[in-house]
Amino acid sequence: MARQVSVVGSGAAFEAAAEEVGRLLAEAGCTVVTGGLDEVMAAAHRGAKAAGGTTIAVLPGERREDANPWADHVVVTGIGHARNLAVAASGDAVIAVGGSYGTLAEMAFALRLGRPVVALEGAPAVEGVPVLASPAGAVAEALRLLG
Amino acid sequence: MARQVSVVGSGAAFEAAAEEVGRLLAEAGCTVVTGGLDEVMAAAHRGAKAAGGTTIAVLPGERREDANPWADHVVVTGIGHARNLAVAASGDAVIAVGGSYGTLAEMAFALRLGRPVVALEGAPAVEGVPVLASPAGAVAEALRLLG
Amino acid sequence: MARQVSVVGSGAAFEAAAEEVGRLLAEAGCTVVTGGLDEVMAAAHRGAKAAGGTTIAVLPGERREDANPWADHVVVTGIGHARNLAVAASGDAVIAVGGSYGTLAEMAFALRLGRPVVALEGAPAVEGVPVLASPAGAVAEALRLLG
Amino acid sequence: MARQVSVVGSGAAFEAAAEEVGRLLAEAGCTVVTGGLDEVMAAAHRGAKAAGGTTIAVLPGERREDANPWADHVVVTGIGHARNLAVAASGDAVIAVGGSYGTLAEMAFALRLGRPVVALEGAPAVEGVPVLASPAGAVAEALRLLG
Repeated sequence: MARQVSVVGSGAAFEAAAEEVGRLLAEAGCTVVTGGLDEVMAAAHRGAKAAGGTTIAVLPGERREDANPWADHVVVTGIGHARNLAVAASGDAVIAVGGSYGTLAEMAFALRLGRPVVALEGAPAVEGVPVLASPAGAVAEALRLLG
Repeated sequence: MARQVSVVGSGAAFEAAAEEVGRLLAEAGCTVVTGGLDEVMAAAHRGAKAAGGTTIAVLPGERREDANPWADHVVVTGIGHARNLAVAASGDAVIAVGGSYGTLAEMAFALRLGRPVVALEGAPAVEGVPVLASPAGAVAEALRLLG
Repeated sequence: MARQVSVVGSGAAFEAAAEEVGRLLAEAGCTVVTGGLDEVMAAAHRGAKAAGGTTIAVLPGERREDANPWADHVVVTGIGHARNLAVAASGDAVIAVGGSYGTLAEMAFALRLGRPVVALEGAPAVEGVPVLASPAGAVAEALRLLG
Repeated sequence: MARQVSVVGSGAAFEAAAEEVGRLLAEAGCTVVTGGLDEVMAAAHRGAKAAGGTTIAVLPGERREDANPWADHVVVTGIGHARNLAVAASGDAVIAVGGSYGTLAEMAFALRLGRPVVALEGAPAVEGVPVLASPAGAVAEALRLLG
């Protein structure tokens, strides 16, 4: 099975970074998992697809149509914000790009479950999470932590 | 996006039928979604892979390693039996093969969400769900309901 | 701790029966758990309160204000239909009064978890679930199964 | 309905503080909601009961028996760590006492849903969350934020 890396976050200002993260993950052979909606989630998927990668959307709602257009596979959870647990748990590692409280919940769950978590500058600050200055740095650190 | 069809059920006696259902779905170009564990779930995935298809496991636990070996993509939900909602909701249609109360919950959720549900003989009886005698019949009926 | 019995179901036609079930459960010293919304859920709570009992709402949404006015205690799950698992699991026994697919999911989950389930005539038919003709009969059977 | 305040956290070192928080909340007429297990959760319940208050446990597992002995009412969610969303959402306000990543997820979800969140010194640091030095200070601040 391909490695799966979850990209979590939000904010239009972080879309370019998320797209680069998605592209680099796909180039490294990782499937890109996100919460499946817009902004950072869509951008990470878009970047992965541009590099020929594979993407998975883990949606909070009940309609597959809510997924962004770059999602290859869509899991419709129907459990609202609790799907943040599924996004975090489905990554062999998690990279945070921008984001606010929802992103913080995903980072917290990932850490609770022992998944490596890496943050790009601008993501919520969490003790023990390395903060990287560039998409390339964040992806490299996540891959390094995956061993 | 490829159509996604969820195969729900359990019981070693239904593995051959589930494998055939998975194979036929893959041949029809559908991605096969299951709860990701053993018996009917593994068999449906195995059948899909034998036909060159794509498979998604939606696991109840917190460990990706719990997925059967034929799962291409793994969503680790961590929400126990509540992942039955996600399995049901992630199918554009749902086919029940064998199974007991957990399967019944998946069928009920699929109906609640307006997804077409088809049962192979031996699955839990639910009012309004067509019961087909063969894997080929069940897959054909599911595809017909998808329009 | 008081025994907790979950009342599941829906349908305006079943409100009188649900109110009687709630009243009888409260008279037997049981706390009445429901999904917390209207119709059967509200009626069961109303009946319990009329008899001086205690009620718990387990809501699907994110707002406590959605609970019916007879709910003493409100758990706001935020997980949509997946809260049906919590409603089922929170009852030491479950009584179904009317209802459709959502109710069927609750009955299925209760059975999956080994909770005794009793149906009043008109609830979804599930193999192995005793069907009683009256609220008094349903409550008596639920209490008998609780031992 | 009585106000509900969720107390989140963990760590044996924080039990005395949690017990005091629970006691003060009960004295203020608030029902105390927790995740229902041991340490901080049990201590908050114990304090509330010592003051004649009411307590609600929102359990992650599938067994009511897992609740601590000071839980009056028990909601058995069966959804693992995703129950952290329900704990957060069920409080009109949330007070964090000690804790680690699970607590951080609860604080994040509460903030995401617009619930006031207050931290006692030693809880995870979250931007925008006031940190109080004493149980009395934390409870007073939570009540003040509730208006």
